[in-house]
Amino acid sequence: MTHRRTLRVDYDKTTSVLYVVGSELHVNLNRSAPPTSKFFSVKCTPNVDYTISPPPQGASHLSPIPLTGSSVLLITMSHASQHENDSKLSVQYYGNNKEVMGKAVLHLTAVEISLDVDADRDGVVEKNNPNKGSWKWGPNGHGAIVLVNCDSERSFWKKTDSEQDFISTTTDLKDMSLMVLRTSGPAKLPQGYRLTMHISQGDAESIRVFRSRSSDVVNNTLSHTIFYKYFVKDFPLVLSSEALSQEVPYLGGAGEMKFYVEGLRFPAKDFNGLITINLSLLEPICEGIPETPIFTDRVVFRVAPWIMTPNTLKPVEVFVCSTSDNFQFLKGMRSLVANSGYKLKICHEYMNRGDRWMQDEIEFGYIDSPHHRFPVVLDSPRDGDLEDFPYNDLLGPDFGYVTRVAQRKDVSSLDSFGNLEVSPPVTVRGKNYPLGRIIIGVAFPTATKGRNMTKVVQDFLWAQKVQEPIALFSDWLLVGHVDEFLTFVPAPDRKGFRLLLASPDAAYKLFRGLQNDGHGEAKLFDGLKDEQQITVNELLSDENFEAENNYVQSCIDWNRDVLKRELGLDDEDIIELPILFKLVEDKKNEYRAVAYYPDMVNMIVLGKNLGIPKPFGPRVNGRCVLEAEMCSLMEGLGLSCTFIDDFSSYHKLLGEVHCGSNVRREPFDFKWWNLEM
Amino acid sequence: MTHRRTLRVDYDKTTSVLYVVGSELHVNLNRSAPPTSKFFSVKCTPNVDYTISPPPQGASHLSPIPLTGSSVLLITMSHASQHENDSKLSVQYYGNNKEVMGKAVLHLTAVEISLDVDADRDGVVEKNNPNKGSWKWGPNGHGAIVLVNCDSERSFWKKTDSEQDFISTTTDLKDMSLMVLRTSGPAKLPQGYRLTMHISQGDAESIRVFRSRSSDVVNNTLSHTIFYKYFVKDFPLVLSSEALSQEVPYLGGAGEMKFYVEGLRFPAKDFNGLITINLSLLEPICEGIPETPIFTDRVVFRVAPWIMTPNTLKPVEVFVCSTSDNFQFLKGMRSLVANSGYKLKICHEYMNRGDRWMQDEIEFGYIDSPHHRFPVVLDSPRDGDLEDFPYNDLLGPDFGYVTRVAQRKDVSSLDSFGNLEVSPPVTVRGKNYPLGRIIIGVAFPTATKGRNMTKVVQDFLWAQKVQEPIALFSDWLLVGHVDEFLTFVPAPDRKGFRLLLASPDAAYKLFRGLQNDGHGEAKLFDGLKDEQQITVNELLSDENFEAENNYVQSCIDWNRDVLKRELGLDDEDIIELPILFKLVEDKKNEYRAVAYYPDMVNMIVLGKNLGIPKPFGPRVNGRCVLEAEMCSLMEGLGLSCTFIDDFSSYHKLLGEVHCGSNVRREPFDFKWWNLEM
Repeated sequence: MTHRRTLRVDYDKTTSVLYVVGSELHVNLNRSAPPTSKFFSVKCTPNVDYTISPPPQGASHLSPIPLTGSSVLLITMSHASQHENDSKLSVQYYGNNKEVMGKAVLHLTAVEISLDVDADRDGVVEKNNPNKGSWKWGPNGHGAIVLVNCDSERSFWKKTDSEQDFISTTTDLKDMSLMVLRTSGPAKLPQGYRLTMHISQGDAESIRVFRSRSSDVVNNTLSHTIFYKYFVKDFPLVLSSEALSQEVPYLGGAGEMKFYVEGLRFPAKDFNGLITINLSLLEPICEGIPETPIFTDRVVFRVAPWIMTPNTLKPVEVFVCSTSDNFQFLKGMRSLVANSGYKLKICHEYMNRGDRWMQDEIEFGYIDSPHHRFPVVLDSPRDGDLEDFPYNDLLGPDFGYVTRVAQRKDVSSLDSFGNLEVSPPVTVRGKNYPLGRIIIGVAFPTATKGRNMTKVVQDFLWAQKVQEPIALFSDWLLVGHVDEFLTFVPAPDRKGFRLLLASPDAAYKLFRGLQNDGHGEAKLFDGLKDEQQITVNELLSDENFEAENNYVQSCIDWNRDVLKRELGLDDEDIIELPILFKLVEDKKNEYRAVAYYPDMVNMIVLGKNLGIPKPFGPRVNGRCVLEAEMCSLMEGLGLSCTFIDDFSSYHKLLGEVHCGSNVRREPFDFKWWNLEM
Repeated sequence: MTHRRTLRVDYDKTTSVLYVVGSELHVNLNRSAPPTSKFFSVKCTPNVDYTISPPPQGASHLSPIPLTGSSVLLITMSHASQHENDSKLSVQYYGNNKEVMGKAVLHLTAVEISLDVDADRDGVVEKNNPNKGSWKWGPNGHGAIVLVNCDSERSFWKKTDSEQDFISTTTDLKDMSLMVLRTSGPAKLPQGYRLTMHISQGDAESIRVFRSRSSDVVNNTLSHTIFYKYFVKDFPLVLSSEALSQEVPYLGGAGEMKFYVEGLRFPAKDFNGLITINLSLLEPICEGIPETPIFTDRVVFRVAPWIMTPNTLKPVEVFVCSTSDNFQFLKGMRSLVANSGYKLKICHEYMNRGDRWMQDEIEFGYIDSPHHRFPVVLDSPRDGDLEDFPYNDLLGPDFGYVTRVAQRKDVSSLDSFGNLEVSPPVTVRGKNYPLGRIIIGVAFPTATKGRNMTKVVQDFLWAQKVQEPIALFSDWLLVGHVDEFLTFVPAPDRKGFRLLLASPDAAYKLFRGLQNDGHGEAKLFDGLKDEQQITVNELLSDENFEAENNYVQSCIDWNRDVLKRELGLDDEDIIELPILFKLVEDKKNEYRAVAYYPDMVNMIVLGKNLGIPKPFGPRVNGRCVLEAEMCSLMEGLGLSCTFIDDFSSYHKLLGEVHCGSNVRREPFDFKWWNLEM
């Protein structure tokens, strides 16, 4: 829409006017005409265009036109002036007998002003995109994107870059969004006119703007300290919560000035992610009176959401902890990761302090924009002995960090990120989720008590919007994590993946078949020191145990129904793994479930290679039937199973392979801004 | 969408199942079949329907059907059971040679459950509206509505009803939304099954739910105290932030139970107004284990927004203050209001304590739903000596009260509600605003300092959504209120109204015309004691004064451009009134504007009667030219002007008629939920 501005003109005066190309000056001719004026005429220099409303009937514009109460003159100019006041327009007023009553003269100076961003999302700042002032999702959408600058360019005295309000190294600039102020016009703005950039108080909580002063002369004798100061001086802070409005220089001629927009916070319950930056041209009035903005250009950014990566994405790095007692597990993991061709990163004991639950302290994700992207670790409010690891070891250049601070009393086992997973891409009743959907576990909404994922983390996950979360029921488990009963593996057919679910029914079916085939005396936990062995017959004869597992199956079935509905899955998209649970009494004398033997669904997925907790099931012809069943179920998908012995160092501590590992993966090819919301 | 539930069946067992009509039971036949089963068959009583997936080829359902890994039985029932377990279904499993391997038997009990609301917005709770679980704007929309219960049924120890978590009188029920739980089935639910109603933690901040226990036996000897307790007992609190989930009785047979939903807070920056109430059927497992919700019905409400009423709506009551010095003004107002046929309410000095600015302390609005509506006063954080008036005098039965609490330091003169207005209905570039748009005044966004309307009030106004606000620039005025330069009056043509704007240019034009016609010696302020008179000639010769008014005109023109754009107005929709301003130095040595003579735009609009500050302009032939011009401008619209002398008691204190009065108006005929958003 054309920016239209009312312009006052006084007769018998010359008024100097600064005009912005693309806008329209609107002069109410009657309002300031000499008393008893009846006609008017307009003259102007060639680079000025005008129209008269209502359009004069018949007569030439040069011969006097009847003046009415609604006579309006609309003035435009098509390009910037070389010099101040190089264009002119005059209005002459006439009386009843066409005698001259007075004359208003305008001296016009035209400037071009455009605040530019990458509104078409190609990584390049284009010129004056007509859509730059709004934001629209989808492949035909538009609107610029800004990243939360949550990585750290510093390797000592480390903090996230957004915690400091200055730029200390040019490498930090690539984490920000370039914004260009393009101006064209005379060498200087007319006396008293100024450009100012401004944001609202609310938006200042979410972004900062720096300016590049690259034309400054740089001190030639750079010591380290001076080098540091040099950057701070070279990229002055323009806008922040301390300065919502600030003058920016006008360069003169055809100039381009670079600005860098830095995101400070992720979308939140009270922040939809959109921010607006304004650039206004101010007209001076006089001392002690605020200047009037006579033209405002506007750009809109959306802060990029934090995105999780499902098992179907290609791994980059695998993380595990080394502890005094997990040699056997580490050996299995080393071999699996090496054979799969990925990097294994070991968090050593001085850092993990015996906390082996690498899955639970952190969740890997990333943020993405057309100009840059990098991984971002979400640090759980769990804060076990691994709590320093993400900040100290992961945060760094192009590796971001974000956390939500919860009150100690609000944090439960359900806040560990074994209870935070994400599905592969799905389509649900016609709605696409090309980045999948986040999955968390909570108590039944109907429960009058029960544990929950803390509200600050849930609010964060919902506010990211692009992977709309699904809340499952996981409070039936003692540890209470969704990764105790579900995972996703890649598949060559159907939706590109299978949902794997733990299933006591599947286990009972398998064991009854064994019994039926005369293998009832085969033993579980065979070969394990310190573990009571039990035969298939004994296991099947325990009615109490069967009742417990029926309960577990009904809990998992409840979640299965939700997953089918919320992920748009068919029965054929789900594979049930033979896993048994048992109920144990917790501190509050309530019964909750733990895996009876190593919980095979709690696996690590590395492309086509699965690292599965070794189940120590009954053996037939020397082969563990649980392993055999697992391999047979995965074989058809082209997946290869490696069984890792985590019995004493993880399973006995109520976790398995997945709980004790973490995988950083490649981002999606799909760009989040192309979502249809 | 059909609610589908996975059901476990065990062979050689009889399972009792509670089924909810409208849902679908999904039995994985293979999962719990006896080992080596190869075929199955299904039988059932007539009121049970089932389908088999994949559909059996050729064979009758009664002859054995091949059992595959994906064999699924889908069970439905079309109406409620009379008695527990009155329906049956059995699955028989066969081996390779069709020998019987086992049989699973289901005893089925069907119930109907529907949580019902007025989702079609006709004021009546219909049965099981298919759209009750979502909310959609517009005449073809759907979704129930709840009011914030912000009036007060009590007339002593008054507080708003939502501040107490019990119902003390049945008259309070009409302020709440009726919700009905309809059930049908056997006299009792099978052993251990329960109904529970539940909401999320977030929604509990915004609503409460009460239940009617009308079947209870009532004590016949009701004393006042017992009467009070009787209501509390008769309408027990079901859901609140202290109880997110609570059991509700199952009535047996065909039953209806009434619930009352009470809104607690208005839409806010972090609350979009939508809340969900859930009703679940819980299946018992065993002691110490949470019950499983096997069916959940859901209804969605939107909290009604607070709506302002423009000048074009019919007045109901006019409010003014009586002070020791405003006899003249009161006399004028009494006569105007009486002649216009409305009620005048006078706030006396014991209550106003000398604070005469009735416009500034409060803004009248209303809330509306299909079942009920009432006026709601928004109390300004200004909190002058009138601060007790809205709570003490206005709040009452069917008269609501809402305020936003701001920190003292954040409150400025711009928080007075002379700075909060609303336009008549408009259409802007194709977008309809049938409830008009809210108008507030702030500092220029470009200003590095300046006063603003406080954030908590701005956030409240924006969050109501249905009258999307426009921010004007009013900080150029010493008092800083938009009602100092604009108002709206009804008009028989065009958009149904005119925007009136103060205009120094129009005043100069008028005075120059006077001078031209030989009336340069006519005096302003003629006949006013204690007021320096000035001739038109003197006034026109003061160049400084003219420059100040040019500045004022440019400020108003800036707002005029915004109003034209944001209200979709043409020049013909605007009338400029001849009003002059002068600049005065404020406490911070900055110059700001005040009206030079009584500010005629600051009028009260009562239908076709306008109460206008008497301007005391220069007289020609005994008639004040400002009054004559005003009358002539309004005459064409069929409006009648009454000039009220507010000079000494209002104008000299920097306010006028509008600042010193307030009007409660009829609500819009248009229903806010019919907005297309």
